[in-house]
Formats: sequence, C-alpha cells, structure tokens
Amino acid sequence: MLPEANPADKEPNMKILLVGALGTVGSAVAAELGGRHELVTAGRKGGDLRLDLADRHSIEAALAKLGTVDAIVSAAGQVGWAPLLDLTPEQWAFSLANKLMGQVNLALIGQRHLRDGGSITLTSGVLNHDPVAYGAAASLANGGIEGFVRAAAVELPRGLRINAVSPGVLVESMDDLGPFFRGFQPVPGARVALGYARSVEGGETGKVYAVH
Amino acid sequence: MLPEANPADKEPNMKILLVGALGTVGSAVAAELGGRHELVTAGRKGGDLRLDLADRHSIEAALAKLGTVDAIVSAAGQVGWAPLLDLTPEQWAFSLANKLMGQVNLALIGQRHLRDGGSITLTSGVLNHDPVAYGAAASLANGGIEGFVRAAAVELPRGLRINAVSPGVLVESMDDLGPFFRGFQPVPGARVALGYARSVEGGETGKVYAVH
Repeated sequence: MLPEANPADKEPNMKILLVGALGTVGSAVAAELGGRHELVTAGRKGGDLRLDLADRHSIEAALAKLGTVDAIVSAAGQVGWAPLLDLTPEQWAFSLANKLMGQVNLALIGQRHLRDGGSITLTSGVLNHDPVAYGAAASLANGGIEGFVRAAAVELPRGLRINAVSPGVLVESMDDLGPFFRGFQPVPGARVALGYARSVEGGETGKVYAVH
Repeated sequence: MLPEANPADKEPNMKILLVGALGTVGSAVAAELGGRHELVTAGRKGGDLRLDLADRHSIEAALAKLGTVDAIVSAAGQVGWAPLLDLTPEQWAFSLANKLMGQVNLALIGQRHLRDGGSITLTSGVLNHDPVAYGAAASLANGGIEGFVRAAAVELPRGLRINAVSPGVLVESMDDLGPFFRGFQPVPGARVALGYARSVEGGETGKVYAVH
C-alpha cells in the first residue's frame, strides 16, 4: 500500500542550476525537471547565467550570482572528435578542459553554492564502455568523469551527493551522429532525462545512471 | 593434451619498452618480463632512455632513439593526492598531464615505433571503481585511461593492441600507502605483474586487467 502522503507533497520544489540547458540532452532535462522545479539555466550561448565551462574563473563569476540552490545539473561539455591518430594536442586539450575538467570544476566550485544535502549531476556517456571510431577523446572524458564522481562521493561534505548520467546516443541527435553510431540503439531524450531525475530527486551518491 | 611445441618456443623473445621501470609496479613488471624478453627501460630518474611523461616532446625525443619494438608498457604516471576540496588547479593539471595525457601521448607517439601486431599496455588502478579519500585525481585519471584504452583498441592500425592493467594497492607500497587504503587487500607486485604479461604476451585488445 502506498503511503498516504506522496514524497513530492512533503518536498518543496527545488531550485536547480542546469548547465547546458540549450543542448540536446539539456533541453530534455529541462522538459523533465522544469515542470516541478525552478530551473536556473546556464550555458555558453544563452540562459540565465553565461559561463564557459573551460574557464574556471568564468564558472566562479557566474555562480557568484547564483545564491544557494538545491541541485546542480551539468548536461554540458564538448570534446574533440576525429580519427584516433588525427586528434591534435589542441583537440585533446580542448576535450580535457571542457567535458572533463570543466565538469569537475563546476562540481568543485558549485558545491559551495549547494544547501546541505544538495546534489550534483554530471554527464558522461556510452562511449566510455562502448567506443566508436573518432570518439577516443569522448571515451577518455567519460571514463574520467565516472571515476571522479565515484571518488567525489566519498569526500563531499554536508551530505552533498554526486552522480553521473551516461546517455546513449539520443534519437534527437541521429541526423548528426547516426553515421558514427551504427548499430547503437538510439535513446529518446525524454528517457535520458529520467537518469537526471533519479540523480536529483533520488537519494543515491557515487552512482552512474546508464541510459543506453 | 598440450601441443608438442610450446608457444614460447615459436615466439622469439620480444623487445619491450618499459616506462617507469624504477617504480614499485615497474620493477615487478621488469622481474616478470625481463627473464624472457629484452627490456628497454625508460623513466624520469633513470633507465636506458630518459623521458618526462608530462612533456610530449620529451617522449618524442626519447622514442626517436628506440627503433622498433614489439611492446610498450607504461607503469608510470603520477597524480596529485589531497582531500577533494584541497586539490589545487595545479594538482589537477599535474595529474592530467602525467598519469592521464602522459600515458595517452606515450601510446599515440609510441605506436609509430611498434612492429605490426605489437602491443601497448597502460596503467590505471583500483581507485577508478573503489575510491578512497585523497584519491579523486587518481580516480579520474584511472577512469580516463580505461575509457581511452577501450576506444583506442577499435582504431589502432596494423593489428596493434592496447590494454590497461588496473593494480590494487601493492604489498610493497603498504608502508607508504597503507593508511590511505584501509580495508583493501594488498596485492603482491609479482601478481600485479601478471596482468602486464597477459596484455603483452596474450592476444586481447581493449581490455582492462584488474588485479585487485
């Protein structure tokens, strides 16, 4: 028998910082979480706050205007995309600065802006475990994010939680990415967004929610 | 019934570049592989070749003197070690430049020096999946290496193979590392070295040999 009071009745709506809200994953997350929570959007190209994930100082400056939030969600982070032996040092550095250390810095800077017990959700991806040609920098960044999330979970103070969502290739991205992901089952953005809801609205920490 | 001819009788001894040969893992690998193969050792502090893993040009210069080898083994790669919220930007950059991109660059530069069908073996570590306090940069680097190895395996040309070994904490390191690894079962270096032998002398690619 279900309890008389729905957990959602007792839990006030959350204030959630969503980085990368204009992207394919981010807009699906916004659709899932925006109906029942207050979103503060952030990104390179638009949103309530502008920030460049590759620039630690830009993250600090944007979050200084944020106040306190209940959750931070990153659906952001670019990587270089080229044949393994053609990836340039600049593309590797770009990938590390954006999807990998950009998200790590967002977590480390962002945790100061979270209420006790708040949560951080980062984005990895299917390529960590199921690689494709041209995707080595993405695989590395995804693997690094997953290792970081598991480690940060054992050290974050004040009951803060941290998880990652590992999306498969999105149905909504198949026009662009289809040729790179032959044989992969595309996943609807709305289903990927459920992984973010589990992280934000659940109670776990140090988890990777794979939605493949 | 075993075949009459042992595979080792038909396989000539290999020439193997071993980076980090003076370290705790590296010296165990040297003991395992050195008896039946020719080792060319390399490291920051000594060896047949001197190289700084954090400096791509130093790797290129050292390997220019190498000629062609059958296998490249990295038992090298430092990371910063501090409480999560005390890790400085410099410590993160150091960790990414050494254990993560240092080993990636060794693989990408080194593959030019491998005979067809040769192998690359990198080192990740138990902290990717089983984190400890102070170890977030190690966890991130280990996760990144494992993602990279899986990805590189699908793109390397000429039948080249690449794997990682994920060592647990070594018995030989417990004097220094014991307090950080309470509850972990220490693994003898000689057992960890078997992971490297499987990678070098086996036929698999894209694998992570966990020796925990």
